[in-house]
Amino acid sequence: MTKQELFEQIKKKESFLCVGLDTDPNKIPAHLLYEEDPIFTFNKEIIDATADLCVAYKPNTAFYESLGIKGWIALGKTIQYIKTYYPEQFIIADAKRGDIGNTSAMYARTFLDDLNVDAVTVAPYMGEDSVSPFLSYENKWVILLALTSNKGSQDFQLFKNEEGQHLYERVLEKSQDWGNDENMMYVVGATQGKSFEAIRKYVPNHFLLVPGVGAQGGSLQEVCKYGLNTQCGLLVNSSRGIIYADNTIDYAEGARNAAKTLQLQMAKELEAIL
Amino acid sequence: MTKQELFEQIKKKESFLCVGLDTDPNKIPAHLLYEEDPIFTFNKEIIDATADLCVAYKPNTAFYESLGIKGWIALGKTIQYIKTYYPEQFIIADAKRGDIGNTSAMYARTFLDDLNVDAVTVAPYMGEDSVSPFLSYENKWVILLALTSNKGSQDFQLFKNEEGQHLYERVLEKSQDWGNDENMMYVVGATQGKSFEAIRKYVPNHFLLVPGVGAQGGSLQEVCKYGLNTQCGLLVNSSRGIIYADNTIDYAEGARNAAKTLQLQMAKELEAIL
Repeated sequence: MTKQELFEQIKKKESFLCVGLDTDPNKIPAHLLYEEDPIFTFNKEIIDATADLCVAYKPNTAFYESLGIKGWIALGKTIQYIKTYYPEQFIIADAKRGDIGNTSAMYARTFLDDLNVDAVTVAPYMGEDSVSPFLSYENKWVILLALTSNKGSQDFQLFKNEEGQHLYERVLEKSQDWGNDENMMYVVGATQGKSFEAIRKYVPNHFLLVPGVGAQGGSLQEVCKYGLNTQCGLLVNSSRGIIYADNTIDYAEGARNAAKTLQLQMAKELEAIL
Repeated sequence: MTKQELFEQIKKKESFLCVGLDTDPNKIPAHLLYEEDPIFTFNKEIIDATADLCVAYKPNTAFYESLGIKGWIALGKTIQYIKTYYPEQFIIADAKRGDIGNTSAMYARTFLDDLNVDAVTVAPYMGEDSVSPFLSYENKWVILLALTSNKGSQDFQLFKNEEGQHLYERVLEKSQDWGNDENMMYVVGATQGKSFEAIRKYVPNHFLLVPGVGAQGGSLQEVCKYGLNTQCGLLVNSSRGIIYADNTIDYAEGARNAAKTLQLQMAKELEAIL
């Protein structure tokens, strides 16, 4: 998917919501466990209930990998389901991969070619040759970790050089040599508040993938105040806050209501740029 | 496996060799492709031919993941085979994972519990809560990326703060708060030569996992000169240099010969400490 196509979807749906499919058999409603593939059944219902309210889905691979073969089958079916019934959705494999060049190339093929998602999250620690293999696929995206939403983001991402530049700023700056705002986005946690101002100085035109609204405590208003650009430039993710909003047989409706609440706030924020 | 048990194996075999099982269907001898599970068959033959010469095996998950379900089955069978027939071997899942706390916990369970390997490689970019879930398993190990063997290691790992400390040194220092030399190792590329001196100042007693000997051009002698400690403290990995040493029907013998060459050099290096 191109940047322009993504922006068109955002305008059409008045939403820049990404729904995180962090599906855990211990957290889904118990009646689903009698299904042949509980994870896929849950995802399918969540997707059907939210697809008109969001522009992206983001399965985190850890949740599927932890179920072994069954999990990988459920992930494949989920991606195929979205691609078949909601081809306008941007699909992100939240895999946080990254290895030496020839090995990153294998991960790139797995996710961007075989699973055929639109984007993969990548950890920058190993530098250019760990990232660039993901950039060789047309109309596909790398989403590079920059300033994440968790407490541990302070440990190394805020490491500062003698000019006062943080490591995450160096990542934003250096990676401009590898890709551009048509094939690269950055992960910036919603919990990072005013840091969005510093980030927009480095990447004024890039999309940012913003986790951490909801369960992790980030504020949508603050993210928009400092992060919104003229082409929106934000994909705000909520996982647990949507998919586990209701734990009864009505979970899909609960997810829809939670997504709708965020979409309405987003529509309001988008008025500033549309 | 405990540190002492690993050291006992090193002394017994006069080897600190780790064989990297980066098994690629495009690189294994063509006659194997007629087998029901070519990847597992190849691994099994390589393992049988090298197990008395090495103390560890390191499958890189990218190679298995890229084959989809079949790849995960081959990985599971390979690990089970080593655990059944060579239980004294230290098994490393080279996965380079790392995510926010609750998600890293899922990866930890996948690798350390379900697949039941001894160690997982982890990327440090997201800090403490991305690493610590892996440290809660008894007699299991985190192998944290510090200074990797690839060209991209220069991009961020050498980022330097105002006191002249590099990011990789900060990783070595900070992570001492999370684990110790009984549950944590570090990845340091064989191509990093004299940096081993600086690294040993931070982690004199830890084991280092050292890739990059062979195909990537690192020197075993140099690694030992600066990296060896009184309990060896090194696991030196070779992947392509061993498993693809011979591409004919005699590939297992070729792998054995390549492993033997390294083991003999290692026996000589170990004389300095044994």
